[in-house]
Amino acid sequence: MSGFAESSADESAARVPLSPLTFLRRSADALADKGAVVNGQRRYDYRELYGRVNRLASALRAAGLARHDRVAVLSPNAPALLEAHFGVPAAGGVLVAINVRLGANEVEAILSHSGARFLFVDAELERLAPRRRGLDAVRIDDTGQPGDPYEAFLATGAPAPAESWLEDEEEPISINYTSGTTGAPKGAVYSHRGAYLNALGDVIEAGLSYDSVYLWTLPMFHCNGWCFPWAVTAVAGRHVCLRSVDPERIWRLLDEEGVTHFCGAPTVLIGVVNHPDAHRLERRVSVPIGGAAPSPALVARMQELNLRPIHLYGLTETYGPSTACVWRQEWDELPVEEQARRLARQGAGYVTGDQIRVVDEQLGEVRRDGETVGEVVVRGNSVMSGYFANPDATAEAFAGGWFHTGDLAVWHPDGYIELRDRKKDIIISGGENISTIEVEQTLVEHPAVLESAVVAVPHQRWGERPKAYVTLRPGTSATEQEIIEFCRGRLAHFKCPDAVEFGDLPKTSTGKVQKFVLREREPVGQRR
Amino acid sequence: MSGFAESSADESAARVPLSPLTFLRRSADALADKGAVVNGQRRYDYRELYGRVNRLASALRAAGLARHDRVAVLSPNAPALLEAHFGVPAAGGVLVAINVRLGANEVEAILSHSGARFLFVDAELERLAPRRRGLDAVRIDDTGQPGDPYEAFLATGAPAPAESWLEDEEEPISINYTSGTTGAPKGAVYSHRGAYLNALGDVIEAGLSYDSVYLWTLPMFHCNGWCFPWAVTAVAGRHVCLRSVDPERIWRLLDEEGVTHFCGAPTVLIGVVNHPDAHRLERRVSVPIGGAAPSPALVARMQELNLRPIHLYGLTETYGPSTACVWRQEWDELPVEEQARRLARQGAGYVTGDQIRVVDEQLGEVRRDGETVGEVVVRGNSVMSGYFANPDATAEAFAGGWFHTGDLAVWHPDGYIELRDRKKDIIISGGENISTIEVEQTLVEHPAVLESAVVAVPHQRWGERPKAYVTLRPGTSATEQEIIEFCRGRLAHFKCPDAVEFGDLPKTSTGKVQKFVLREREPVGQRR
Repeated sequence: MSGFAESSADESAARVPLSPLTFLRRSADALADKGAVVNGQRRYDYRELYGRVNRLASALRAAGLARHDRVAVLSPNAPALLEAHFGVPAAGGVLVAINVRLGANEVEAILSHSGARFLFVDAELERLAPRRRGLDAVRIDDTGQPGDPYEAFLATGAPAPAESWLEDEEEPISINYTSGTTGAPKGAVYSHRGAYLNALGDVIEAGLSYDSVYLWTLPMFHCNGWCFPWAVTAVAGRHVCLRSVDPERIWRLLDEEGVTHFCGAPTVLIGVVNHPDAHRLERRVSVPIGGAAPSPALVARMQELNLRPIHLYGLTETYGPSTACVWRQEWDELPVEEQARRLARQGAGYVTGDQIRVVDEQLGEVRRDGETVGEVVVRGNSVMSGYFANPDATAEAFAGGWFHTGDLAVWHPDGYIELRDRKKDIIISGGENISTIEVEQTLVEHPAVLESAVVAVPHQRWGERPKAYVTLRPGTSATEQEIIEFCRGRLAHFKCPDAVEFGDLPKTSTGKVQKFVLREREPVGQRR
Repeated sequence: MSGFAESSADESAARVPLSPLTFLRRSADALADKGAVVNGQRRYDYRELYGRVNRLASALRAAGLARHDRVAVLSPNAPALLEAHFGVPAAGGVLVAINVRLGANEVEAILSHSGARFLFVDAELERLAPRRRGLDAVRIDDTGQPGDPYEAFLATGAPAPAESWLEDEEEPISINYTSGTTGAPKGAVYSHRGAYLNALGDVIEAGLSYDSVYLWTLPMFHCNGWCFPWAVTAVAGRHVCLRSVDPERIWRLLDEEGVTHFCGAPTVLIGVVNHPDAHRLERRVSVPIGGAAPSPALVARMQELNLRPIHLYGLTETYGPSTACVWRQEWDELPVEEQARRLARQGAGYVTGDQIRVVDEQLGEVRRDGETVGEVVVRGNSVMSGYFANPDATAEAFAGGWFHTGDLAVWHPDGYIELRDRKKDIIISGGENISTIEVEQTLVEHPAVLESAVVAVPHQRWGERPKAYVTLRPGTSATEQEIIEFCRGRLAHFKCPDAVEFGDLPKTSTGKVQKFVLREREPVGQRR
């Protein structure tokens, strides 16, 4: 006998699809007068945000949107892009938020590959927007006033929620195109279920609460802002918009808006904490960091300012963050250098993730010795559904039933993982692996070094040797020989760079150092 | 064209079943040396807890457990019951945690109705355990030492995780029998998916973090401890066990173990905050409260002690809590009486819930005016799958596609709901509804009143009239007439009790006042 009920008509009360749209509905329903959006002088509470989102959804349907149609947005972190994170899926569409620092041809490639049916484009970015048949474009002036074409578009919709077309929580909610690759664009497809769960993970890992005020330093077009548009809304927190990463404005908003959280890559944070307006904040502000590990100098400076670093790691394919370096209370007693060393680890899988492992080429786990290098592989509900219209790349990424990150890491005895390199960045010198990240972390311990990047250069005898590119802090100086000697005092000699070049580092539009640009500066021939 | 992938073999990497078992695996994997369990002098870290849970699972299988077999546990809040919350589902079984304050015949009814195959019973509760065929019983001495039959049972298992039998996240994880009803036992079936999601809801609504230390004042047999066994484990928090609600011991553990959270009903908290050992704590401790709204006197006393009340509401059928009275920052400025009045509201649906509404008999929403009374209905993933082996009761509870709570409430303009009464408790006097909760909340504002319960008594002219049962604070006194006059100064006269009786209140084993006992003291005949 089994007394457990089978599926029945009644199950509608006990099973509803997981979707971040429920976060907004609930905040608008029961916390309606809480502040939802700040954009300069404009402010919306949750009732107003929900009304605008519903208008967007019904206007899209009225304009002919069909189920799963792609809706592209080219916008800085302004209300329209936040609204699109809810309004597009509420309409039944799929959001394609495009990196605003791309060139017109790259934008065109994404629009074309995704088959976008609508394009919302900020007035300052119109030069990037192609005119072509089958693509309805709406300009956003970001005024919130009548006369703004985006506002006129909203006015054609209704403030009541549109009937849901969602039948299955694994339907797509967005496509996020990866940056910095060559070849055909790869668009990671996110589902309603995955977005819902990773957003809850963000709430827990970043410690968001009903009192949170979130400053939008991280681009929303980057992995859907690591799912924070949905996470902040889940706890009816306040979104403080920011059209550009302007440290002066950031410090003003930190003071004036009572910000409790903001996210960023170390390169962005370096600019913020070293700005003349930087000052110690009265309340502690939590700062999820991703894209690279924070250096000891950055961690120390953040602590002075009462900024609490939370190191996250993930990829476009994992909805942004999928690990957190969970802070251990016993680290409180360590010297800051040692704290930074711990914090540089990528850590443990997200609470809402499933498994993250470091494996050898046969998918066997490497030893948890902090030394054996393997590839990071992931599985769980916050792994993309696949690459849009690219079954070959999808099959390759999921070989063996695991998502392959292409990142190389060691596994520490305590279970935390620590990245050693991108698979394509690691240097093989005389048969030994050299982690460029390890060398870079040593370089930034030098008091004159602001940032660094290490790449392989071809070598007749050793195959490859490390070369360092270094940006010095303003007002400091150092010689190539000093830098090399500094490394030799801290690293095995074979890991130390043979050459150092000073200057600015080439970066992607999301602030990542473009090592391939540095590699291309070297003589061809032996380049991998 | 659709570029979205269909289901494929690859999806195993991007879709795993939601189950709270993943919380324990992850904490044991990456936070293994964090303290997991404290039980007097015994302590287990997450590695040890996981090993014990795995042993329990494999020992159950070795003893013949088949998929979805029910495993009953009769235990106070000791490690074995916590372990059963993971080990039983890890084995593929379904946990039936039984209220230890029931009589032997009630226990027998639950064992029989659930068809339990195994019974784990604490040595102090053996008198409740029937001996019968087909039921394998294991005694728990709660020593953690060899010689304890439970430990001997664990020793027959292996410390490595058992292969999962879970195919669908909606498979049952537990059955929770409702208390205080007459007739056949009703067992609410919880699923892995629902338990996972409500546990994440607990983490967010109660503000649990990686630094949380949770004291087990709330019985784990009560709605699976409101899902806190899973929630605390999700953030690798520390479970501090407690075999009985002993205020002296509670105050000692609050001091010695660095407790950050504990849960309870107001009746339990009244005993804690009025104990001679009560003292202001240095750090703020969060106290989720359920079962009834906290009175102004209780809220004021908690604030003095640095205990932060978080008012939750739910039922056995909703995995314990399904709403939270989310604190609004603007309430900080209100006088404590007004704060308590706000906090008495049941509030907003859980972040992981879906919808909670107050409806009329046609399932239409009542006006959000804070006055119109309707029934609270719920839908979402944290509504039970149904009553075990009771399709009629299930169909009735889910009439119209919503779960009917049987609770009457008003809906405030801000979206918060506030209970007025159990459907069966409301008093109808001369055609007017009288909320017994409203009268009770007025009564406890009287300085001499510790607790109260109001019930209907038959009345020739008005049909029903309210009668108050009152427990006075030790060392105080009041007359019937004083109490009635106190109410008449604060309530519409028709709502004031006609009679007051002093003495202790009859309570269920979970601390709820048993109004039916009070009603039965009245002359029969006109009783409903």
